[in-house]
Amino acid sequence: MKLELKEMLDTLRRVHPLIHEITNYVTANDCANITLAAGASPVMADAPEEAEEMTAISQALVLNLGTLNREKLKSMILSGKKAGEIGIPVIFDPVGCGSARFRTGAAVQILHEVRPSVVRGNLSEVGSLLGMPLHTRGVDASEERCRWTARQVAETAAQQWDCIVSVTGKTDIISDGRQTLCIDNGCPAMACITGTGCMCTAVMGAFCGACPAHLLGAAAAALIFTGLCGEMAWETAGRDGLGSFHWKFMDAAGRMTGEQLEKGAKYHEA
Amino acid sequence: MKLELKEMLDTLRRVHPLIHEITNYVTANDCANITLAAGASPVMADAPEEAEEMTAISQALVLNLGTLNREKLKSMILSGKKAGEIGIPVIFDPVGCGSARFRTGAAVQILHEVRPSVVRGNLSEVGSLLGMPLHTRGVDASEERCRWTARQVAETAAQQWDCIVSVTGKTDIISDGRQTLCIDNGCPAMACITGTGCMCTAVMGAFCGACPAHLLGAAAAALIFTGLCGEMAWETAGRDGLGSFHWKFMDAAGRMTGEQLEKGAKYHEA
Amino acid sequence: MKLELKEMLDTLRRVHPLIHEITNYVTANDCANITLAAGASPVMADAPEEAEEMTAISQALVLNLGTLNREKLKSMILSGKKAGEIGIPVIFDPVGCGSARFRTGAAVQILHEVRPSVVRGNLSEVGSLLGMPLHTRGVDASEERCRWTARQVAETAAQQWDCIVSVTGKTDIISDGRQTLCIDNGCPAMACITGTGCMCTAVMGAFCGACPAHLLGAAAAALIFTGLCGEMAWETAGRDGLGSFHWKFMDAAGRMTGEQLEKGAKYHEA
Repeated sequence: MKLELKEMLDTLRRVHPLIHEITNYVTANDCANITLAAGASPVMADAPEEAEEMTAISQALVLNLGTLNREKLKSMILSGKKAGEIGIPVIFDPVGCGSARFRTGAAVQILHEVRPSVVRGNLSEVGSLLGMPLHTRGVDASEERCRWTARQVAETAAQQWDCIVSVTGKTDIISDGRQTLCIDNGCPAMACITGTGCMCTAVMGAFCGACPAHLLGAAAAALIFTGLCGEMAWETAGRDGLGSFHWKFMDAAGRMTGEQLEKGAKYHEA
Repeated sequence: MKLELKEMLDTLRRVHPLIHEITNYVTANDCANITLAAGASPVMADAPEEAEEMTAISQALVLNLGTLNREKLKSMILSGKKAGEIGIPVIFDPVGCGSARFRTGAAVQILHEVRPSVVRGNLSEVGSLLGMPLHTRGVDASEERCRWTARQVAETAAQQWDCIVSVTGKTDIISDGRQTLCIDNGCPAMACITGTGCMCTAVMGAFCGACPAHLLGAAAAALIFTGLCGEMAWETAGRDGLGSFHWKFMDAAGRMTGEQLEKGAKYHEA
Repeated sequence: MKLELKEMLDTLRRVHPLIHEITNYVTANDCANITLAAGASPVMADAPEEAEEMTAISQALVLNLGTLNREKLKSMILSGKKAGEIGIPVIFDPVGCGSARFRTGAAVQILHEVRPSVVRGNLSEVGSLLGMPLHTRGVDASEERCRWTARQVAETAAQQWDCIVSVTGKTDIISDGRQTLCIDNGCPAMACITGTGCMCTAVMGAFCGACPAHLLGAAAAALIFTGLCGEMAWETAGRDGLGSFHWKFMDAAGRMTGEQLEKGAKYHEA
């Protein structure tokens, strides 16, 4: 499977889609900024009184479970259904799933009532939604085993939920249940700042909003884009520290060209 | 009209006013930091249980409609009325007005019940509040036409609402319905990071809180201050990327001197 | 009293504790990032539906009163009681106490119902909780007098509330009612960006979560750690401005070694 990465980034920057993001207050600023840097425009309304209307004028909807509350969940369901009606992609990030019943219950409700187009989470989040409590720390969590498990989880979830599922980690896996890609972009420092997962999901919203006809490719492009931002930030600022890395990450996002994306991409079919 | 820019910035840094900002969670950190960098102190309480009391000890009130919800709207009305009672300026930013009825309705309610001293928004936000749905994208939106429309919208709104109105864009317009200024500070990169509009409104709170007797001049000074921060950030970090630009913007705000403000200002009466 | 600073930082980075932080949306991103940079992991759930469960899997709980509302207060009480049941330290930051009755009332309720392990605030916040309205601005607030008052307030509060109390300012004071330390790390620029107080409290959560058997030492280590980050950031970025200082502060946090912490610490018993 050959990804048309340059074409997708060019499309994103030409179409300049509006992305409605219902997200958490911890990383909202970073998510808005990377949405802009990638080439889209964010709108972040989360009140049930206006969520649907904001979705109605958008080209993609991003639902992120960080700092969840009842009102926000209500908005996510309303916006998610509206997105289904008007046929725009819904990208779902089940942040923290598996750690509290309210969170897990909300994620299950979203899966059933909204039927997202793409789900992106780490192994324990996606695994817990499949009803597999995974112990990814400790003796059993060898790298080999994790990668195998991540692939299995992504493919099982994709088939069960009939959508694209990405399980991110050292290697990012993405599958629509038929085709599966492994992506090896990124760097360890990305786990040392908050919000790289949320930002990746926001970038998925941007690519999917611009290329709704090719969601697997668009979502994979977002994984590569985000991972490559990490690599570039690490090269220029790795030794300076985490604050510098954070902002060089944003620098890389805004400066990324289609050529760089093509050249830096490390992916293969599983 | 000659603006006493140096004098106003010196006053702001001497008086060090407390600014109560009821604002959105996407750009709150940037707004608090630029409030400090300009020379004021922010307080950001938004619960109806304490909003009035925080307003009562402040020298200006900033109301920003981003990530609006019912509780926050209640606080804005309570705080806005308190500000009227004690006679401190209210700066109102109708973020996203025109895109959802709840938002537009809230803005209309604030205009009527709070009667803000200064309103700052972009053309479509202020235009929609006047009941003019403006199509600012596409063929008709030539630069010439936009500037003309912005001036007309600012002056009409200022007369209708009996307050100062600023319509910001490539050229910022500010009018009290009698006098109108055009300000040409700023740079295109300011539209590529989130929150430059919110930050500008916060800086208006700082200047207006310090110079309540000259609100048109104070609000104009804030537009020049913010635009000049953008120009300075662009000069030092433009090529590095959007993350660097963001933080150089904050660097410029903290280092801005009265002399630089006077020297860099680009304004004229319309 | 000799603080085992290197040992505590090493322990923190080995144990990698999970810190549940119920905090404000203005500085949440900075708090999450400094928690990571110090060596711990943050989780920031604040809904009453899940607060207790998140506390139950954590090694420390941080309660921060910024942008307080009724729901968040409910979560703080629930999480605080759960922390007491399972025996993990609770670090309490009474942000803005004394400025509004709802805030002060909430702080009093937390003191009584949660019984925090450590309280950290500035002189007027902690003073107002003791029922001493302090006028720290103006003629009477000489540096000498402030330091004396801070010590008295910290010791009185520590005895009255039977916990560790830190009153931060130019000199940070920390006392358990028997022993009192004065810490002279830090720099004036820390007061010019928002969130250094909140970040210090978050770092206290990290150290106390890792070293729950030595809370006075752990909390003091956090004060030194944060102050030293400020000193390092000032040295490398002081002249560049407040944006650069902000991110160099984070750089310093992530790069801080046990040796640097030992070498840079400036403390003595009072």
